[in-house]
Amino acid sequence: MSKKKTILSGIQPSGKLHIGNYFGAMRQHIRMQEEGDAFYFLANYHSLTSINDGERLKEYTLDVVLDYLALGLDPNKCTFFAQSDVPQTTELAWILGTVTPVSLMEKGVSYKDKVAQGLNPNIGLFSYPILQAADILIYHSDLVPVGEDQKQNIEICRDLAGKLNRAYDDELLKIPEEYIVKSVAVVPGIDGQKMSKSYDNTIQIFDEGKSLKKRVMSIQTDSTPLEDPKDPESCNVFALIKLFADEDQKSQIAEKYRSGGYGYGHAKKELLGMITDYFAEAREKRKELEKDMDYVHDVLKEGGKKARERAETVMEPIRSATGLYRSF
Amino acid sequence: MSKKKTILSGIQPSGKLHIGNYFGAMRQHIRMQEEGDAFYFLANYHSLTSINDGERLKEYTLDVVLDYLALGLDPNKCTFFAQSDVPQTTELAWILGTVTPVSLMEKGVSYKDKVAQGLNPNIGLFSYPILQAADILIYHSDLVPVGEDQKQNIEICRDLAGKLNRAYDDELLKIPEEYIVKSVAVVPGIDGQKMSKSYDNTIQIFDEGKSLKKRVMSIQTDSTPLEDPKDPESCNVFALIKLFADEDQKSQIAEKYRSGGYGYGHAKKELLGMITDYFAEAREKRKELEKDMDYVHDVLKEGGKKARERAETVMEPIRSATGLYRSF
Repeated sequence: MSKKKTILSGIQPSGKLHIGNYFGAMRQHIRMQEEGDAFYFLANYHSLTSINDGERLKEYTLDVVLDYLALGLDPNKCTFFAQSDVPQTTELAWILGTVTPVSLMEKGVSYKDKVAQGLNPNIGLFSYPILQAADILIYHSDLVPVGEDQKQNIEICRDLAGKLNRAYDDELLKIPEEYIVKSVAVVPGIDGQKMSKSYDNTIQIFDEGKSLKKRVMSIQTDSTPLEDPKDPESCNVFALIKLFADEDQKSQIAEKYRSGGYGYGHAKKELLGMITDYFAEAREKRKELEKDMDYVHDVLKEGGKKARERAETVMEPIRSATGLYRSF
Repeated sequence: MSKKKTILSGIQPSGKLHIGNYFGAMRQHIRMQEEGDAFYFLANYHSLTSINDGERLKEYTLDVVLDYLALGLDPNKCTFFAQSDVPQTTELAWILGTVTPVSLMEKGVSYKDKVAQGLNPNIGLFSYPILQAADILIYHSDLVPVGEDQKQNIEICRDLAGKLNRAYDDELLKIPEEYIVKSVAVVPGIDGQKMSKSYDNTIQIFDEGKSLKKRVMSIQTDSTPLEDPKDPESCNVFALIKLFADEDQKSQIAEKYRSGGYGYGHAKKELLGMITDYFAEAREKRKELEKDMDYVHDVLKEGGKKARERAETVMEPIRSATGLYRSF
């Protein structure tokens, strides 16, 4: 058993990844592969609560894999796999359900939101915190890096692990530590709201050429004339530039904003250049990977195998303690 | 693919089986192995909603297997296996959950009962009709023999299969036929209520000797004196005799009841002899089987293998249609 802490994170395949995803999560994932025994999974069972289109989910899944590999995720340093490659996950989810009071799920934030909107949510959405808990617990994860909005679900996960351990008076599951990622950059979309696929305001990581240019040029700005001084801190373009620029570049561009004679068009062109350069290497790598899909499938196959092996070491004592017969 | 219809039935391991179980379900199971391609599973994931004791569940599970094999279930004629040996089951249950409205589960009879009793049910109990649907649908079952009390759950099963098929516009799941078993004998317990483990009024199938005698002798009767004529149809002892006796025996004993001079003690002795004879062969066979647990495990191993193979042929097209990645 490795002495490194097990880090667990899920990525929901739900469309082309954008620079909000990159600075909000992907960059951290890629960094953390150096810091622990990282398990990253494509949360495709979760995607089914919102996507009912097999071709689309398959495409999204492989897109995410290509994106991560291109951006530097190294399958030799971490375990990268599809959730649906680990049958132990739904098995543990069922077992956890037998110690989960219905009332606990009724308190779930996303569920309450849907009900408040007058919707009739499905059971997948209602009980997804249980599947999420199984995702985490099935690998004896130590650390789960999440944003503030997922804090409740990590609490539920810790709660359910404790409930199962107490029900069988045994340390069957490891209680993961909370690890709220606080310093994550807020990435504005081209309309100034938080960048999100659901607002259609994203800039995709692997967009390029005319399409990327058009997207960057359409970032919303105010109507201050070109010659007037401008406030960089209230500008969407500058907010994005800050993600890509080093300290020197940042102060130089801020200075140009404040001096006047520097228009938003100029700033957008600088940003376009920065995005292009920043992801240039990844963009090339992604094109190469697309030509070698066998390798991509091998990565998932190998990752799935490692994940199942770990999951089985966790499930075996659980089957034994609960008395669930297994002949193979 | 066999042209025989697939018959599916689950048996929940929850203690020593009694003659109510035998005449209510087991006898039919054993008969139906001749009539179709029968799949019988030990519903141990379901047992977890009420049993939190691994040793007990393991014991109950093997007891059920021994009981069925001793009574004539032939593993060469049917597929006999443990639910926990088929990982596809909880996988399909999750997928079905994504097309199940929460409101449908809230209408569940057993769930409403628990809530009415002021209990806080667990998610396992709340969503068990989904797991039950998966149990049925994962083998493309045609027929599910159930009692009237399970009618609602079969309707839910048919409903969920239709919902998934429509969500993906494909005949992914076979809609099972309802097959309500109506002519099942009502078996009274020793107190005259329906025989049930929860009323502690059972006569166990494999009980014998003094213990069985004591149980039969304690069947409740009225206080009509020995010499008086008696009504067989209002007597608990006669109700049990009817299950074991042929037509001739039945009319002879009924005649003795009506003639007087025949006491309940006499009737109980006749019943004791009948129970002893009826299960004599099975009792011997069970003792032999207990000495050969390797064979018993082999039966489950072989049954589990067949069940997984069938389940995989059903899951493969579902994974393909939903876009769930599977590398192995």
